[in-house]
Amino acid sequence: MKRIAIDMDEVIADALGKFIKLYNRDYSVPLDLKIEAGNEIYHHVPQEVNQKWFEYINEPGFFRDMEVIPDSQRVIKALQEKYDVYIVSAAMEFRNSLVDKYDWMAEHFPFIDWQHIMFCGNKIVEVDILIDRIKNFVGFKGRPLLFTSPHNLLITQYERVNTWEEVAGLLL
Amino acid sequence: MKRIAIDMDEVIADALGKFIKLYNRDYSVPLDLKIEAGNEIYHHVPQEVNQKWFEYINEPGFFRDMEVIPDSQRVIKALQEKYDVYIVSAAMEFRNSLVDKYDWMAEHFPFIDWQHIMFCGNKIVEVDILIDRIKNFVGFKGRPLLFTSPHNLLITQYERVNTWEEVAGLLL
Repeated sequence: MKRIAIDMDEVIADALGKFIKLYNRDYSVPLDLKIEAGNEIYHHVPQEVNQKWFEYINEPGFFRDMEVIPDSQRVIKALQEKYDVYIVSAAMEFRNSLVDKYDWMAEHFPFIDWQHIMFCGNKIVEVDILIDRIKNFVGFKGRPLLFTSPHNLLITQYERVNTWEEVAGLLL
Repeated sequence: MKRIAIDMDEVIADALGKFIKLYNRDYSVPLDLKIEAGNEIYHHVPQEVNQKWFEYINEPGFFRDMEVIPDSQRVIKALQEKYDVYIVSAAMEFRNSLVDKYDWMAEHFPFIDWQHIMFCGNKIVEVDILIDRIKNFVGFKGRPLLFTSPHNLLITQYERVNTWEEVAGLLL
């Protein structure tokens, strides 16, 4: 059985949407803000608070109530029939994210057991397929699938998936 | 640079000592209890509380104040000169261990950055050497080094290290 590792933020959990909500609450950034291709959230908020995202992300609770990326639950459940599926998040950068991410997984992906969840820094995982963002592909020897997010829209050197429906089409 | 992954409990953190302290506090189990070869702590405590270890291990704080295994800090710091060193713990089994283990690492191993710490279930890590207990060697293709703990004393099929001094002698 081939192994797949799947990232959390911007792949199964809508971190960007959470940032927009908080910038909306505190600085009236519009909730329907569209991030331009290649940009991060901090390119689209008032300059004097464009580093505020770092405070947000370190707050307990930031990772606890994110929306689930559409279709990810259904497709990942189906993937488990054919693959050994791991969720691998570079959570170690943010101390307060650990328990939030653990609880978020238990709520939204209860069919993924603790043996298949990994919080790490560098993703030195032995897997065949990695669905992730670009920085985690460095040194990866398997098949990388770049899951589309505004910040990576200008990247062309990786096989890209725009939605979980597309992942299903490729892997199921 | 070769990669090493090092387990936490019974390898760099004295989990067994912590269990003995708690059983001593609550049930007068002697602090100098010697665990017989092949046994776990629950073989050596009153039968009516031999599953109490599972409550202890799930309590917040259990993993926070463990003693450091002798010489592990000094030897691991020296290993970092020659190897890419990761700490890889199967912490995901115990929700409340996550932040405790994170803080414990920051206190006792501040020279290991977040990129090199991993909390997981199955250890599907791509490393050359794994210093760990037996169950994590299953499927591992590199060089396993079994770090001695009472429960694994009867195991003979792996290369064994009894102390961090011995690790230094082998790898430095």
